[in-house]
Amino acid sequence: MNKTFTLKNVFVEGTASVVGPSEGAGPLGDLFDVILPDDIYGESSFEKAERKMLLESLSLCLKKYNYRPEDFDLILAGDLLNQLISANFAVRDLNIPFAGVFGACSTFNLSIGLGSLLVEAGYVDRVIAGACSHHQTAERTFRFPTELGVQRKATATWTMSGAGSVILSRQGLVKVKEITFGRVVDYGLKDTNNLGAVMAPAAFDTLKRHLQNLGKKPEDYDLIATGDLGSVGQIMLKHLLGDASLDAGNLTDCGLLVYASTQDKHAGASGCAASACVFSSYFYPLLCQGQLKNVLLLATGALFAQITAQQKDSIPAVAHAIAFEKVE
Amino acid sequence: MNKTFTLKNVFVEGTASVVGPSEGAGPLGDLFDVILPDDIYGESSFEKAERKMLLESLSLCLKKYNYRPEDFDLILAGDLLNQLISANFAVRDLNIPFAGVFGACSTFNLSIGLGSLLVEAGYVDRVIAGACSHHQTAERTFRFPTELGVQRKATATWTMSGAGSVILSRQGLVKVKEITFGRVVDYGLKDTNNLGAVMAPAAFDTLKRHLQNLGKKPEDYDLIATGDLGSVGQIMLKHLLGDASLDAGNLTDCGLLVYASTQDKHAGASGCAASACVFSSYFYPLLCQGQLKNVLLLATGALFAQITAQQKDSIPAVAHAIAFEKVE
Repeated sequence: MNKTFTLKNVFVEGTASVVGPSEGAGPLGDLFDVILPDDIYGESSFEKAERKMLLESLSLCLKKYNYRPEDFDLILAGDLLNQLISANFAVRDLNIPFAGVFGACSTFNLSIGLGSLLVEAGYVDRVIAGACSHHQTAERTFRFPTELGVQRKATATWTMSGAGSVILSRQGLVKVKEITFGRVVDYGLKDTNNLGAVMAPAAFDTLKRHLQNLGKKPEDYDLIATGDLGSVGQIMLKHLLGDASLDAGNLTDCGLLVYASTQDKHAGASGCAASACVFSSYFYPLLCQGQLKNVLLLATGALFAQITAQQKDSIPAVAHAIAFEKVE
Repeated sequence: MNKTFTLKNVFVEGTASVVGPSEGAGPLGDLFDVILPDDIYGESSFEKAERKMLLESLSLCLKKYNYRPEDFDLILAGDLLNQLISANFAVRDLNIPFAGVFGACSTFNLSIGLGSLLVEAGYVDRVIAGACSHHQTAERTFRFPTELGVQRKATATWTMSGAGSVILSRQGLVKVKEITFGRVVDYGLKDTNNLGAVMAPAAFDTLKRHLQNLGKKPEDYDLIATGDLGSVGQIMLKHLLGDASLDAGNLTDCGLLVYASTQDKHAGASGCAASACVFSSYFYPLLCQGQLKNVLLLATGALFAQITAQQKDSIPAVAHAIAFEKVE
C-alpha cells in the first residue's frame, strides 16, 4: 500500500484549453477556449500543430490570469510523441525551467501531482502544468498514417486533438486535495486497438489504493472521472469495481464526454488531451460554480511504443489519481 | 532568473550501476557494479536488454542497501527511447508508484531533482531514481541501425550502454545540496551528429543561473561535470564560460571519462547513462571517501526525435544542475 498525499495549500488558480475541430464540434464544444479551424493550424506538419496547441494553451493560461513567464519557476508538461517533442519544443519559447514528464495519456495528472507537491512544500509560489495530444500525430506514431485508410476497430479509441493547461498556486476556488501516483500494471494484454481494456486494471489499482489509503468510498466523490478508458475500458473497470464491492454509480470517463455518438469515434476520445481538456474546460468551471463539490480525476495511460508492439510485448499501463475539491 | 533550490535534509544513501562491455573495458571499468558480457544480455532484443539493465540497477540498489520495494513510495526514472519504454517496462516488476520523467540525456538529474524535493519536503522517507541508455537501441532510434555500417562523424558522441540508480533519503554521506532545473534553449543548430554543440548553450544557461542565484563561482566546486557534451561540446562550453569571465579549470565531462582514447568512440560517451553511471560509480565513492568535497553534476540533454530531424527542425536542449556535497 503506497502513499496517498493529502494537501492543504494548493489550488487550481486557472485553466486554459485548445482543441481541434472535431472536439469543438462535440457536446463540450462551447466550453473550450480555442477551437482550431483545421488539424494543421497554419503549420507545415501535424507535429508542429500539436506543439502550437500546447504553447497556445500555456500562453493563454498566463494571459487569462495576468501572469508573465517570469512569474513561474517551473513548468511541467508532456505529450504522447517520441521523446516528448511537443512539450520540449513548445516550452522553448517560454523561458521557464522545464520538467518533462511522461505517463502516456495520464501525463496531465502526473504533471499536476508533482507540481502540486512542489507548491504545497512552498518551494515555488506557483507552477504551470500541461499536456497535449493530436489525432494525426498519434495515428502515425502508434497506428497507421491516416492516409492509408486502415479500418478502425470498434474497440479503438480516437486520440483527440487538444491541449490543456493549469496554473497551480496558493490561491483559487478549487483545491488540489489528494494525490495517488500509479504503479505500472501489466495484465499481459497486447491489443493496441483496445487500450481501454489495457488501462482498466491500472485505473482499478490506483482507485482502490486511493480509497483504502483515505478510508473513503467511491460515493464520497461527486464524480470519479477516468481519463480515456472509453466505452470498452469503462465496462471492464465497472466489473473490477463490482468484484471488489465498490459502487460505480458516479463513474464517468473524460473520453466519453468529448464526442457525440453521431461523430463515429468508436470507443471514445483518448490522448493526454482527454483528461487535460475535459478537466480544464468542463469539470473545473463546474467545481468553481459549486455544481460539483469534488471530483476524482483518474487519468489513465497505456505505456507502449511502436517497437514494443512490433516485438510482441504486452502493454503496461498506469493511472494517476488527483482529487479536486471546491473551496467552501 | 529562475530559482535554485537549496536543500538541507536530502542525502544520496546509495547508488548502483550496470554497464555494457565497451564501458566495462574503459578506464572506469573496475568501478561499475555489473558489466554485461554482451550487448543483448540474454534477451531477444536490445530494447529488452536496456530495460533489463535499468531493472537490474534499481534492484541492485535496493539489495545493496537492504531495502524492499515496499519501502518506497515513489520511483522516478526515464530513458531515451520512444515513450520511455525502458523505464515503463522496467518498473512494472517493482510495484512502486512511478513518475516517468524525460530530459533526454539529462534525465538522471531531472529524476534526482524532483525526487530530492519530495524527500526534503518530508512527503516520502526515500525515493529511488534512475536512468538508462543503450548504444544499439539509441542508434536505431536516433541515427541508423548499426547493421547499415554508416560511417560516424568525428563530432558524434557514442551513446553508452548502462543504467544508474540512486536512493535518496534522509541519511547518507553525500548531501543533495542545490538544484537548478534547466530552461529549454535552442540556438538553431540542426546537426544530430554534433549534439555536444547543441547542448553546450543549455549547459551554460543553467550553470550561469546556478552560480548567479547562489553568488558562487565555478571554483567553489571541486568539479563541475557536464553530462555528455563530449570533446566538441566541452570546447564550446569553455568558450562560453570564457566570454562570461568564468573559470573553466575544474570542468570535466562524464562522457569523456568513460572510454579510453584507443576505443575509437569519437567525441566521447553520451546517453542518460553517462551522468547516471559516472556519478553512481565514480563521483559518489570519491565524495563518500572525501576525495572530492563537492561536485556540480550538470547533466545535458538534446531534445529531438527522428521526426523533428526529418522535418528540419532545429534541436532544443536542456541541462539540469545538481550539487552534491560530502557531509562533514
